[in-house]
Amino acid sequence: MAFHLLERDREGGRELAGAVSTALTSVGHCRRCRMLTEEELCSICASAQRDASLLCVVESPADVIAVEQSGGFRGHYFVLMGHLSPLDGIGPEQLGMAELERLLTEGALREVILATNPTVEGDATAHYIGDMASRRGVRATRIAHGVPVGGELEFVDGGTLAHALAGRQSMG
Amino acid sequence: MAFHLLERDREGGRELAGAVSTALTSVGHCRRCRMLTEEELCSICASAQRDASLLCVVESPADVIAVEQSGGFRGHYFVLMGHLSPLDGIGPEQLGMAELERLLTEGALREVILATNPTVEGDATAHYIGDMASRRGVRATRIAHGVPVGGELEFVDGGTLAHALAGRQSMG
Repeated sequence: MAFHLLERDREGGRELAGAVSTALTSVGHCRRCRMLTEEELCSICASAQRDASLLCVVESPADVIAVEQSGGFRGHYFVLMGHLSPLDGIGPEQLGMAELERLLTEGALREVILATNPTVEGDATAHYIGDMASRRGVRATRIAHGVPVGGELEFVDGGTLAHALAGRQSMG
Repeated sequence: MAFHLLERDREGGRELAGAVSTALTSVGHCRRCRMLTEEELCSICASAQRDASLLCVVESPADVIAVEQSGGFRGHYFVLMGHLSPLDGIGPEQLGMAELERLLTEGALREVILATNPTVEGDATAHYIGDMASRRGVRATRIAHGVPVGGELEFVDGGTLAHALAGRQSMG
């Protein structure tokens, strides 16, 4: 891409540089959910079409995009911008837990869905927030761990398979 | 491997050929669960250590090995040797549904766990067996679809993410 711009499209390169520079100054975080946005409130928080009683907690803006593209969620988000990692100096303050706590105590929330990554740190972060929500009388749920859709059982790792068996659900 | 045997280990090659030939004549199917075995009853069906009230239905012998290695299951199995696929001429008879029906009516089963592959055919097969079990008063459950353990949300496909959200479970 660098060679293409330098050899054939210096004008396009200049436009690109301008766009990146504009983005770096104008894109900030949503006041409510910490998602990247150019406004004070992101388009999801500002929308009247979303279910304000559901809050999906994710680790990064890319996760918001992934959940939005799945089409399986119509509520609001809260973006932690990371996960609890005491060794790296990332504690509750760095993840905006104070803002999250404010949302939990506002009273509009019925359920908090913990959609942090299915890793050790993601699980620990989910449990931390789950406890916080329960203490405030808000139901906390964790996204399902299990076999990916369209795959074959034989090629799924043992840990995931054990989770899929433990998390089995009644049919019909 | 072929070159190694031909150039350096003809004796080993002969042993291998003998072992394959013995396996082809002596390995058959378990009378009860259809798993591959040299005995009439496979070691799992014959074991007194396993929970006879749980039955895990899978598509292939490789799936039995995968579930066993996950360490998440201590009951019995039933191996369909495929999935429903009317276009390929694979109906209930080819999958041993008569034997499965006999197990369901014996009365020892409390729960049937449908662990067919998370594909369209696997889901259809699971629903077919789930209906069969319900009609006989046996609880039918499906293994969880969701995000694989240790992965990152961002790289999970939309269908799996939608399933993970729909299948979320209460915490603590």
